[in-house]
Amino acid sequence: MRIVLDAMGGDYAPEVVVEGGVWAARELEVEVILVGQEEAVRQELEKHDTSGLSLPIVHASQVIEMTDKPAQAVKAKKDSSMVVGMDLVKKGEAQAFVSAGNSGGVMVAALFRLGRMKGIQRPALSAILPALKEPICILDVGANTDCKPEYLLQFAIMGNVYMERVLGIEKPRVGIVSTGEEEGKGSQLVLEAYQLLKGSGLNFIGNVEGKDVLFGLAQVVVTDGFTGNVMVKLTEGAAGLLGEVIEEEIKRSPLTALGGLLAKPAFRRVKKRLDYSEYGGAPLLGVNGVVIVGHGRSNAKAIKNAVRMAKQTVEGGMTEAIKGEIERRVEGERRG
Amino acid sequence: MRIVLDAMGGDYAPEVVVEGGVWAARELEVEVILVGQEEAVRQELEKHDTSGLSLPIVHASQVIEMTDKPAQAVKAKKDSSMVVGMDLVKKGEAQAFVSAGNSGGVMVAALFRLGRMKGIQRPALSAILPALKEPICILDVGANTDCKPEYLLQFAIMGNVYMERVLGIEKPRVGIVSTGEEEGKGSQLVLEAYQLLKGSGLNFIGNVEGKDVLFGLAQVVVTDGFTGNVMVKLTEGAAGLLGEVIEEEIKRSPLTALGGLLAKPAFRRVKKRLDYSEYGGAPLLGVNGVVIVGHGRSNAKAIKNAVRMAKQTVEGGMTEAIKGEIERRVEGERRG
Repeated sequence: MRIVLDAMGGDYAPEVVVEGGVWAARELEVEVILVGQEEAVRQELEKHDTSGLSLPIVHASQVIEMTDKPAQAVKAKKDSSMVVGMDLVKKGEAQAFVSAGNSGGVMVAALFRLGRMKGIQRPALSAILPALKEPICILDVGANTDCKPEYLLQFAIMGNVYMERVLGIEKPRVGIVSTGEEEGKGSQLVLEAYQLLKGSGLNFIGNVEGKDVLFGLAQVVVTDGFTGNVMVKLTEGAAGLLGEVIEEEIKRSPLTALGGLLAKPAFRRVKKRLDYSEYGGAPLLGVNGVVIVGHGRSNAKAIKNAVRMAKQTVEGGMTEAIKGEIERRVEGERRG
Repeated sequence: MRIVLDAMGGDYAPEVVVEGGVWAARELEVEVILVGQEEAVRQELEKHDTSGLSLPIVHASQVIEMTDKPAQAVKAKKDSSMVVGMDLVKKGEAQAFVSAGNSGGVMVAALFRLGRMKGIQRPALSAILPALKEPICILDVGANTDCKPEYLLQFAIMGNVYMERVLGIEKPRVGIVSTGEEEGKGSQLVLEAYQLLKGSGLNFIGNVEGKDVLFGLAQVVVTDGFTGNVMVKLTEGAAGLLGEVIEEEIKRSPLTALGGLLAKPAFRRVKKRLDYSEYGGAPLLGVNGVVIVGHGRSNAKAIKNAVRMAKQTVEGGMTEAIKGEIERRVEGERRG
């Protein structure tokens, strides 16, 4: 399998990205195509032992920066690693695209170069988060800040396919984020989407409140891209805040500091369990190809895991499965 | 000062509510009017030493349950503790109303009996949350699931007055929740509200992302009631999840368990710092009177602190200050 890795994307690119790419090529036995400024990428590659690995470089002279405006940048920078990389997928020279760069840029490049799937109204960015016992999929987390009820139904369908095909969870519980558990609670958008989900044939469990989301009440958590984006970032912030406050308080006395020292392995395990980098990325669902958006602050492990997510997504036959599901539903509607 | 406490409101009412009321009367030197089913309230009161305290009971035969539909219940149960208690404030027999009961019920009762403030389009429920160093005020957190940009401007004005008058924070930093830091990021609602806030004369610092909210980047955090509700509950859930995972991992080995034991005082301090019950309640801003909504799961301390919040809100002259501010702005607009 061939996976494109945007070597210029991410806060620590190209250094850390190339490191993650080498790691992925070795561990996952895939070909990792590094797209980016050839000289810079080659210099990074030379720092690693790459014997026996397939890590071709494809040159792209431009870089879409984190601060660039997505649509403008994608149009203007035709020789950027994102655009060149996406085109490799479009031409069938690679099966997936991974980037930890400007996430808006990745989404726009995917839309412009790969295109929206037939029948899909809006692609959705899906965060895979660690819940108490098993991962949950929240979508949309930022591709669409303003949504219609029909989009949310499609997000649910795509999330459902992803959980079944890629994570092997049969008939995942699907819920919609709202302000109360009972039917009838929530915004106008939620009330309307609720009705669509109720009649969708999915394993719909109804509304999920903010306090229950991370406990895995629903495995596919559907929401608009504004709320979803705020939720995912707030979770990150809450964990960060709690971590900081715990550290401060533990250091406040010698005895608690000793306790903290002894408990360190436990904290390390907590971090590992709740670490986004264990998942590595957010699949963009609903475009014609496998696209994984990594966290801007991705370290090498997160990059490696993002490539693994891409590999699993290709192996799960995601794109075809979503296409099939959408066609089946359109066909079903036509027949009444 | 006289403060009405809804003795029947909350998951552990009347027992824990009465306990908190007695505590408040002693510590805060206020008169706490306990409204509820006389016999039940009296029985609870008798468990405590109330000598020298002013804790009159006002009988109300009905109870608005947690599961009741707010508008219906408030209309149907005219002799409920919420309606009777709210009327005491309306008649000037008390200066504030506190309830940990059905929050929708409290909001509807406040709207029906006290009424919206002149010039205020929508009252807002405001959560006071512990941030890293100082409290922040997020509003709206549930009074209005669908909002217009003008509502958000008024939320900002009200939150600003609250922070200045009650918490003594001069010119608090005001931010709007969005999906990116830069101007131009966010939903249609946010884009429009941003422009209003920019021209508001408030200390507006722009967009605040989910990850930054709890770190106190903005002290008044403005958002629609849907997003705000999800945010506050998600924060609660994230803290709960992290707590559970830490406990699980600490118990996994004798050494880390010992460490956890030694570090216990630190964890207790963390809990105290981040505990909602230290604040006790959420002020409902924009109605003609001081109304504090407590958490349904309030313990006695949370009830006591909710009464304290009510007292401070009255002392800060909140209601008059918001009225004055709104009038000043309307006047300003008229003069152009």
